[in-house]
Amino acid sequence: MNAKQLVGEKATEYIQDGMIVGLGTGSTAFYAIQKIGQLVKDGLKIKGVPTSKATEKLATELGIPLLNIADVRSIDLTIDGADEFDPNKQLIKGGGGALLREKIVASISKVFICIADASKSSDVLGSFPLPVEVTPFAYQVTAYQLEKLGCTPKLRMQGDQPFVTDNQNYIVDCKFEKIEDPAALTIEINQIPGVVENGLFANIATRIICNTEDGSVQVFE
Amino acid sequence: MNAKQLVGEKATEYIQDGMIVGLGTGSTAFYAIQKIGQLVKDGLKIKGVPTSKATEKLATELGIPLLNIADVRSIDLTIDGADEFDPNKQLIKGGGGALLREKIVASISKVFICIADASKSSDVLGSFPLPVEVTPFAYQVTAYQLEKLGCTPKLRMQGDQPFVTDNQNYIVDCKFEKIEDPAALTIEINQIPGVVENGLFANIATRIICNTEDGSVQVFE
Repeated sequence: MNAKQLVGEKATEYIQDGMIVGLGTGSTAFYAIQKIGQLVKDGLKIKGVPTSKATEKLATELGIPLLNIADVRSIDLTIDGADEFDPNKQLIKGGGGALLREKIVASISKVFICIADASKSSDVLGSFPLPVEVTPFAYQVTAYQLEKLGCTPKLRMQGDQPFVTDNQNYIVDCKFEKIEDPAALTIEINQIPGVVENGLFANIATRIICNTEDGSVQVFE
Repeated sequence: MNAKQLVGEKATEYIQDGMIVGLGTGSTAFYAIQKIGQLVKDGLKIKGVPTSKATEKLATELGIPLLNIADVRSIDLTIDGADEFDPNKQLIKGGGGALLREKIVASISKVFICIADASKSSDVLGSFPLPVEVTPFAYQVTAYQLEKLGCTPKLRMQGDQPFVTDNQNYIVDCKFEKIEDPAALTIEINQIPGVVENGLFANIATRIICNTEDGSVQVFE
């Protein structure tokens, strides 16, 4: 069993009958969803809330009953990956460009379990460029204001065109050297007009499940 | 001369040769722009940055040279209206739905002059429902989270369809009883995933120009 499968399946142990479960997106969440599909086949009664169209498709194929996020006000537990995490359970997400939907789901989740292989661990966030979703209108001004916060901003491209999110916005990937205070930075970034959302998940994760060198799993509470 | 014309024209006295000038939107800004057009005809050398398509059209007709906001990193002075203002120069804007563009322009303006007739004055903000621009995706969840901040949120409609902004987003008008701390509230609102921008202009206005009962103008610095 590879590391992603190991941590993905471990996370499903926290799911209980009757829960509304947020279903993450990405290669690690994939294994969690596979396992949830198996548990549902074996009789587990839950309802899922997908964080992307890809996850919605996968969950449907696996027979996991789904709810539309628009109809949900509270989620019992969400399992999702991260692009980087630190020892204080602060995360960077959004490498796949779905940060807004993932953050909406996270923001109404009572418990948020981050699953990640050990390669995503950092003492201080900043190795992974922080994805920031911005409105296309005057995005150059928005990028300039992000730069003034101390990063190198780069408009995400797809071929020779800007990458466009599910919400018809752009992504600016912001390379900070070190993000010492994620909670403060997320406030500063969200105050910039033109910023829709940023990939810092500060004080959101309840626990992080990751693999260790000896092939077991480690849970940070 | 009506009150709107009085304050609109007064604001143009702060414009100097060579400035880049942000041009607001609305019935009071209309008079300022008319006056600027006249000054430009008389030899004033400025470049304007419009906050809306309507203003762009008006300024073009008046012969005011314009810059594209995407090419601008700093504006010397912006003149714009407000839907409500308090004695601390805190504003609510966005009644017309153009708050994002107005806020981008304001955020890079060295001086922001708010022009408003006296009817827009309040001891404490909150008479005017606060416009919040939100992404259409799961806007119901976003509105629910706005409600938890203590307001009554209402999706802005146009006929039987949601009103759509220039950025293809929706507007939720949030009726607060009293907004005692606009700076704190704007941070709280912008932290909600799904919120693109809100109409609170906290600590942005340099001065407010409004009319008085005796027919003169009053300038709050």
